[in-house]
Amino acid sequence: MRALTLRTGLEFCEQYPTPEPSPGEAIVRVIQAGICDTDLQLVRGYMGFQGVLGHEFVGIVEEAPHHPDLIGKRVVGEINAACRACPVCAAGRPTHCPHRTTLGIDRRDGAFADYLALPVENLYPLPDEITNDQAVFTEPLAAACQILEQVSLHETDRVLVIGDGKLGLLCAQVLQRTGCRLTVLGQHPEKLQILADRGIDTSQDPTSLSPGFDIVVEATGTAGGFTLARECVRPRGTIVLKSTYHGQTVVDMTALVIHEITVVGSRCGPFPRAIALLREHAIDVQSLIHQRFPIEEGTDAFAYAATKGVLKVIVEMT
Amino acid sequence: MRALTLRTGLEFCEQYPTPEPSPGEAIVRVIQAGICDTDLQLVRGYMGFQGVLGHEFVGIVEEAPHHPDLIGKRVVGEINAACRACPVCAAGRPTHCPHRTTLGIDRRDGAFADYLALPVENLYPLPDEITNDQAVFTEPLAAACQILEQVSLHETDRVLVIGDGKLGLLCAQVLQRTGCRLTVLGQHPEKLQILADRGIDTSQDPTSLSPGFDIVVEATGTAGGFTLARECVRPRGTIVLKSTYHGQTVVDMTALVIHEITVVGSRCGPFPRAIALLREHAIDVQSLIHQRFPIEEGTDAFAYAATKGVLKVIVEMT
Repeated sequence: MRALTLRTGLEFCEQYPTPEPSPGEAIVRVIQAGICDTDLQLVRGYMGFQGVLGHEFVGIVEEAPHHPDLIGKRVVGEINAACRACPVCAAGRPTHCPHRTTLGIDRRDGAFADYLALPVENLYPLPDEITNDQAVFTEPLAAACQILEQVSLHETDRVLVIGDGKLGLLCAQVLQRTGCRLTVLGQHPEKLQILADRGIDTSQDPTSLSPGFDIVVEATGTAGGFTLARECVRPRGTIVLKSTYHGQTVVDMTALVIHEITVVGSRCGPFPRAIALLREHAIDVQSLIHQRFPIEEGTDAFAYAATKGVLKVIVEMT
Repeated sequence: MRALTLRTGLEFCEQYPTPEPSPGEAIVRVIQAGICDTDLQLVRGYMGFQGVLGHEFVGIVEEAPHHPDLIGKRVVGEINAACRACPVCAAGRPTHCPHRTTLGIDRRDGAFADYLALPVENLYPLPDEITNDQAVFTEPLAAACQILEQVSLHETDRVLVIGDGKLGLLCAQVLQRTGCRLTVLGQHPEKLQILADRGIDTSQDPTSLSPGFDIVVEATGTAGGFTLARECVRPRGTIVLKSTYHGQTVVDMTALVIHEITVVGSRCGPFPRAIALLREHAIDVQSLIHQRFPIEEGTDAFAYAATKGVLKVIVEMT
């Protein structure tokens, strides 16, 4: 099958082996998949991953042992394949299973390919109201929804999202629905306009913000975002970390103690919640798609996705 | 009056000006005060403080305008003097008032002196059951109690305290009372023995711990404690930061995101709770007192307190 693979570098491969399903796994024919910042980081060496990249996909189930009802269904899929047997899984935290593999990120071939394999329980059939373009946003939108699973938000809270990349724009739209007093700090007028069009306050100038935010979501994807978040959050406030990046951050931990700041690491989130939001067309994801490429031009797609200011790039398998 | 002052270095001063009370402030004649690690850090330049050091004290109220009932009472005192007028104070967070001064730490002369001034509402009269030695532990014990104000603890939780200094020993004793599954990791057999005598599991060997603690309290007072805490906490677990120290820490923030760790900065705590625990003799503080010095020998007291392995040193004004 065709696939975008990472070995020493990113390559389009015409004849990559089609995945063999392990027990309990389904085979999905991929329709299209989105390029995520994590993919760009993986190409730069983050996680040391080798194999087929891609984890934001929509596809059609072609094989599903013991689940004939799934065959032919259009699906999205949770990316963590847990062992479902260890104490962490038993405690209800399968996305943290120490034995898990992660689609296109950690020891499991991903979605920039004609076919992928995932456990049957990871798959979510899609309602017809959700387009294929919307569907590839399920995974990052679920990650944005995870904030609400971890932090209690009140209408009176002043909330700041730092970062106007894809994840920042999704987080902002999810947070807006809580009715909180939301501001988004970004660097790109055209991206911030997407939010302004939806009635969200935006700013390009950190010095224009009055500090003392109750909650700050750090979604810049850079180490510098944390320092800014620290400066903007109030004492006893909460910083939600959504950024993953290669490298370490120098942190004044004593300031966290003195100001009694809470820092919450936040990663993958609830797919059902994201699917419900997409079904309601509650979130504008279409404006986030900047370009589409066929899989044969996958390396061009990655180069384009890495261009400053570019949002979502879609890789099409069909 | 006599005082231990910090200018370019720590000095005993025979004739320091007696404090003049601002409106709403009381004057307390100090009986004795404890040397805290923060005091040792202040001498090394932390916070850039200049003035009289000391914030863990017990004393007798000598002046209290409009509060004649307080005169002659034996008291301890909360160390943050808030403005009681700004929005932060109005929001119920006076210990985070941006205009606050802090006894012996930030723009307010402290307790290693014959007299100190504090707002009347900062003072807590002591029941007779609490000795002067116990009383000087009110402030650090309140800081230990603050953990329970910030984190929900269950009996089934595996909890690790890292650090067997004064604060670590107090945190451990407070946490033990919740019935959680507690382990304390330290470096000093004689200090850990204080906890072992009270039925608390202790260890000197991090490699002997099975990781996956639900909650880890970092009370080492060093930058290295955080990395160890990160290694010991489970995914979606909580690290409580109690350490303040001079300097920065290099942190793998991405690991916090991937494992969805929550980090909670924790500082000063509820005095009434600490006083209630001392009144019940629920916490062994007497074993933590290693030496006593008259104020005239204050610089010797500080040198002794800075000796490796030494716990609480008391400076006596009477």
